[in-house]
Amino acid sequence: MPWQVDLNNPLPVLQPVNGFRLGTTSAGIKTPGRPDLVVIEIAAGSTVAAVFTQNAFCAAPVRVAREHLAQQQPGYLLVNTGNANAGTGDAGVRDARQCCEALAEYAGCSSQAVLPFSTGVIGEPLPADRIQAGLPSALQQLDENGWAAAATGILTTDTVPKGASKRVVLDGQAVTITGIAKGAGMIRPDMATMLAFIATDAVLDQDVLHNCLSAAIEKSFNRITVDGDTSTNDACVLVATGKSEAPAITGNDVNHELFCAAVTDVCIQLAQAIIRDGEGATRFVTVAVDGGENTDECLNVAYTVAHSPLVKTALFAGDPNWGRILAAVGRAGVSGLDLDSVQIYLDDVCIVRDGGRAPEYTEAAGQQVMDKDEITIRVILNRGDCDEEIWTCDLSYDYVKINAEYRT
Amino acid sequence: MPWQVDLNNPLPVLQPVNGFRLGTTSAGIKTPGRPDLVVIEIAAGSTVAAVFTQNAFCAAPVRVAREHLAQQQPGYLLVNTGNANAGTGDAGVRDARQCCEALAEYAGCSSQAVLPFSTGVIGEPLPADRIQAGLPSALQQLDENGWAAAATGILTTDTVPKGASKRVVLDGQAVTITGIAKGAGMIRPDMATMLAFIATDAVLDQDVLHNCLSAAIEKSFNRITVDGDTSTNDACVLVATGKSEAPAITGNDVNHELFCAAVTDVCIQLAQAIIRDGEGATRFVTVAVDGGENTDECLNVAYTVAHSPLVKTALFAGDPNWGRILAAVGRAGVSGLDLDSVQIYLDDVCIVRDGGRAPEYTEAAGQQVMDKDEITIRVILNRGDCDEEIWTCDLSYDYVKINAEYRT
Repeated sequence: MPWQVDLNNPLPVLQPVNGFRLGTTSAGIKTPGRPDLVVIEIAAGSTVAAVFTQNAFCAAPVRVAREHLAQQQPGYLLVNTGNANAGTGDAGVRDARQCCEALAEYAGCSSQAVLPFSTGVIGEPLPADRIQAGLPSALQQLDENGWAAAATGILTTDTVPKGASKRVVLDGQAVTITGIAKGAGMIRPDMATMLAFIATDAVLDQDVLHNCLSAAIEKSFNRITVDGDTSTNDACVLVATGKSEAPAITGNDVNHELFCAAVTDVCIQLAQAIIRDGEGATRFVTVAVDGGENTDECLNVAYTVAHSPLVKTALFAGDPNWGRILAAVGRAGVSGLDLDSVQIYLDDVCIVRDGGRAPEYTEAAGQQVMDKDEITIRVILNRGDCDEEIWTCDLSYDYVKINAEYRT
Repeated sequence: MPWQVDLNNPLPVLQPVNGFRLGTTSAGIKTPGRPDLVVIEIAAGSTVAAVFTQNAFCAAPVRVAREHLAQQQPGYLLVNTGNANAGTGDAGVRDARQCCEALAEYAGCSSQAVLPFSTGVIGEPLPADRIQAGLPSALQQLDENGWAAAATGILTTDTVPKGASKRVVLDGQAVTITGIAKGAGMIRPDMATMLAFIATDAVLDQDVLHNCLSAAIEKSFNRITVDGDTSTNDACVLVATGKSEAPAITGNDVNHELFCAAVTDVCIQLAQAIIRDGEGATRFVTVAVDGGENTDECLNVAYTVAHSPLVKTALFAGDPNWGRILAAVGRAGVSGLDLDSVQIYLDDVCIVRDGGRAPEYTEAAGQQVMDKDEITIRVILNRGDCDEEIWTCDLSYDYVKINAEYRT
């Protein structure tokens, strides 16, 4: 598939993070000339937290990265696109290790200090030779201002690079949080996302950092779906270089709260950017479920609506076919659901009440909402106090086209 | 949407069932001139078993049919297409009752002896007046040879009518089983199918009949999926008129076994016909999961593969993208799945073994399978003795087109 990244779609300003340098190059992994190899250097003394896919068939780099992370604090991240090194068995693990060793040799560190990440087509042997040949050029590019180039260098079927950056002030000292992400299809993160790399110069120990990342993911990458397919390669990494002058973030004080909220915000921006760029997506859809008994119940209803091909094709058509939303809610398996208590809204237009179409609803009012690029479907269960929301997109001809032609 | 039934696609011979007459007419419910109203007359002394959708938002006719069935043995089935009478609240229930009352008046029976069934667009008021106006014509058409006309009269987005017929000999006496079905999208039956009406002249009491129907559904309509969406209107009815000379079928003897196997066979033929005619379907796909610990585990893996939009678009493209199958198996949530034990086949071509691509696999061999219209994806878990299979289809441009344009 041709490389069609829309470079007119500008990234926000991505603030550099002291102690975190990114180098991007083209190693010709799949498409000649396309940037496809990113090396990230993490300053000594940093702490690193990472969360990986729950898919049982996790890719070789995920296995190796987990193993290396358990052994020591990483000094380098090695990311390639164009090949996922997944479903490649023992040979894939050997290839991933070999790339780590090559980078370690150039950088003068142990190979366990390198975490590998791959994304792209599943089941093809990793071209480890091309990746190794590209390493010197990537290392040469290492720069604290290398975020934008790296945001492009990790893309697969994405059409725009994705990044977010935020600053918070803790006790009068600025702390930066900057991140990039990729992901356009096979998106139903399960305790992780596609690839996301986030760095901060804040000072945190490993446990606090990991808890902060887990909480942020739960409210961001774990709240999106394009097609319900969980990738074999999902990974999200948060690095704290500790280079800022701000005080160390420890317990549950106000600094901790401010910092975690900012990380969550960066993650939500990245997660929503993935959905906006979902394969073939023409609409950004928030599915909100209010008044459920608990989080599981709300998310179950939300994902049932968000994954329904009939709801998704109606969203593509801009058709306020609320009967399909109602049918999806009805099959979500909520025990003892009282039909007559359920209300469904498109933005602020009530479409379902008392077990049927709201009397005041008009097709014109529904159509007005559906003509927008961003829509909220709100399901009010009226059973409890729990509210949740997730983000998804529609199912278009282009989704079928992109995925039918992916390997041609 | 225009009426585009392919009448060149011939139904098999549908043997009449003594005591079961069908009358079909056009009531102009949605598309002028299209047959859309079917009345079925069941001889006195028949027994009737029915299974309905588990969708919490079941349609008004489902509510009324359940209620009537609990009160007495039915004498009539009243079926309309073009309007599902779902999501229509109390008014929908009143409309369904009113249609039953009108038929009861013409037929000289109680309105509780009429079971209503509707299929078509959700959320529009049922045009009860047009249905009532069409009743005399439908009653005039009542005929034991009315199966083929009725098979056409119950269709919605289906492109071919669906029917199956079978005879078994019990103690030297022939028994006939004939059925028709409709269903092209919103197909993930859950303890029921879209609409299916099956009749036999065998002699059975209510309990035996119901158990036979439940067992048959479990192996047929509950083993298919087009898009994972469970309809609000699913229903499957099995009528035994008792008019044959064969002995009554009671316990677990050989006659019971022969009869139940034949009913299951008719149901499988109808269920597979629904998949072959799935919205936009270009391929008929069997997903077999062997060597699971239990049925739930096998079905969970099978449905995860069958619902994966990435697998379905690869099937549409005829692309042996086995990595997507592997990724779907990996996210099916099988606890403690040993990657290295899993094998995946396309027909008899092994594509995955020992956690990666099978060494002997070639793209050419995979392509040869994918070029067929009918494909089996076989996942061998190697964990236990349970085998299950389900049937599904691919996800094509036309699925999106049909469902994006459904209401225009």
